[in-house]
Amino acid sequence: MHSPSELLKQIETAIVEIEYPTYPATLYEPISYMMSLGGKRIRPTMLLMSVDLFNGQIEPAIPAALAIETFHNFTLIHDDIMDNAPLRRGKKTVHEKWNVNTAILSGDVMMVEANKHLTRVDVSVLKPALDTFNATAQGVCEGQQLDMEFESRDDVSIPEYIDMIRLKTAVLVGGAMKLGAIVAGATADHAGLIYSFGENLGIAFQLQDDILDVFGDPEKFGKQIAGDIIANKKTFLLLKLQELANADDLTELTSQFNNADLSDKIGNITKMYKSYKIREIATAEMKAYLDKAFDALNRIDVPESQKSQLISLSLELMNREK
Amino acid sequence: MHSPSELLKQIETAIVEIEYPTYPATLYEPISYMMSLGGKRIRPTMLLMSVDLFNGQIEPAIPAALAIETFHNFTLIHDDIMDNAPLRRGKKTVHEKWNVNTAILSGDVMMVEANKHLTRVDVSVLKPALDTFNATAQGVCEGQQLDMEFESRDDVSIPEYIDMIRLKTAVLVGGAMKLGAIVAGATADHAGLIYSFGENLGIAFQLQDDILDVFGDPEKFGKQIAGDIIANKKTFLLLKLQELANADDLTELTSQFNNADLSDKIGNITKMYKSYKIREIATAEMKAYLDKAFDALNRIDVPESQKSQLISLSLELMNREK
Repeated sequence: MHSPSELLKQIETAIVEIEYPTYPATLYEPISYMMSLGGKRIRPTMLLMSVDLFNGQIEPAIPAALAIETFHNFTLIHDDIMDNAPLRRGKKTVHEKWNVNTAILSGDVMMVEANKHLTRVDVSVLKPALDTFNATAQGVCEGQQLDMEFESRDDVSIPEYIDMIRLKTAVLVGGAMKLGAIVAGATADHAGLIYSFGENLGIAFQLQDDILDVFGDPEKFGKQIAGDIIANKKTFLLLKLQELANADDLTELTSQFNNADLSDKIGNITKMYKSYKIREIATAEMKAYLDKAFDALNRIDVPESQKSQLISLSLELMNREK
Repeated sequence: MHSPSELLKQIETAIVEIEYPTYPATLYEPISYMMSLGGKRIRPTMLLMSVDLFNGQIEPAIPAALAIETFHNFTLIHDDIMDNAPLRRGKKTVHEKWNVNTAILSGDVMMVEANKHLTRVDVSVLKPALDTFNATAQGVCEGQQLDMEFESRDDVSIPEYIDMIRLKTAVLVGGAMKLGAIVAGATADHAGLIYSFGENLGIAFQLQDDILDVFGDPEKFGKQIAGDIIANKKTFLLLKLQELANADDLTELTSQFNNADLSDKIGNITKMYKSYKIREIATAEMKAYLDKAFDALNRIDVPESQKSQLISLSLELMNREK
């Protein structure tokens, strides 16, 4: 077994060693730039932890880990265009540093690079690896589309929201772990269970993110605190509040959406969250998905000792304040 | 052997039979829309002709043909965003009919669809098929990047231009035919030769397109005649004229770039093309690539009778007026 930090080190080394073509420079420089911005590399790490869980070799799984991380970064480049985001990990987004056309096209070729990485897995597992990768990629695109559509809808239900975050965030965690299982030669049952673990963990993670946006420690939370409140983002918290609020509070909430005094807006909406115990409800929902994840993990027939790293990493992610 | 029109019919049938997911509708509708706009389906047809050439079965090669056609249409969606094009095949482009974000994301998921088609080839040829597909996809992106960069450069050389059209247009023809060879179980030598045939034919085809833009019959040419002249597009013709023109004519040419009287501009530049015999030079260049293509085809060790359809289609493409 390898610790997550050992696996992360191998991933970082492999990322640095990738050689992109040098011509046309403007096509490939954004890829190196994006890949070098860092991030937690949580998806490839969990992919390799899944390999470890099923007693696979790490080295032959590195191409799959690079495929997942490259794909993830490609989606960030295109998402940033669509969201008109100026910054990513504290640095200029690709479309800001270069331009929109370059960001579209570098993203496209980055997806090709992701596919190229994946073809380097052992040919005996190539077909199932591709099927998993493509299904994952498709889900992520569907999730992004739903996320955009929800912005202009005022009738988004909580099941729809959960399905959106499942597609946008969780299938990539599940898909990464399933890929790890496939490369490690796990059974189809085991691959399905680790997918379920990853997917449910991913949903729990996103719900935790929704909670931290409002109730996280501003000193520790990586993003702008209350960014979701400011943007009237339809998170689990907001949708649940809209479900539970009485008529007067709903009117008040709707008027707060246009409150230009942001500090006042944050204070008022947070107060409503508190009065309807939205944090507790969201935490219970998050824990329900965490339970589903652990239930799937429990059903995986490997020695419990091999699961300990995954369990502690999951709990760490859930108890994080950032 | 199948005639090109028989193969085209099989492709059209297969395209109609593709079932895309229905949710989210806005993600998948642009894909059906784009695939239904038609076009000559020249790339998948040539892929299947290559299968035929090497005595392969057509049916198992259909997924590869769909992968190529789907990829091609994906590049058109993204190219149309980058070129700010309002129309494609006489209909609204995807970003005009929906919006830019939808066009970006539907394009992305369309590339996943292309990859999904490809994974359905026989597993025994999956790895080389993927390698060829990815190399092709990468080349097309590089070509589009160079095409965009050349717009703002005034020192583009003819070899650079040829390399750009090779990447943007010709590698996809070559790649499609190589894929056909791989799926048909041809030798690596044969796959390389048919690639060379397709690539050189693709370059010849694009040079012919440059010529037809200026000298084609307006009644027959599918696009706006002299569109390249109006846009000051750095085609082979323009680059060659800039190479050969004397100082006075170069000054005159440069001043024509800003001539707002388009009919006058077209007349003046066409006159210069004629006086420097640019059409004849471009035709000779086109024929040189056609010769290279036929040279590669000649070296393929199959009965000459099996090559006749490819030869006649190639000559037809070169003698076209549209």
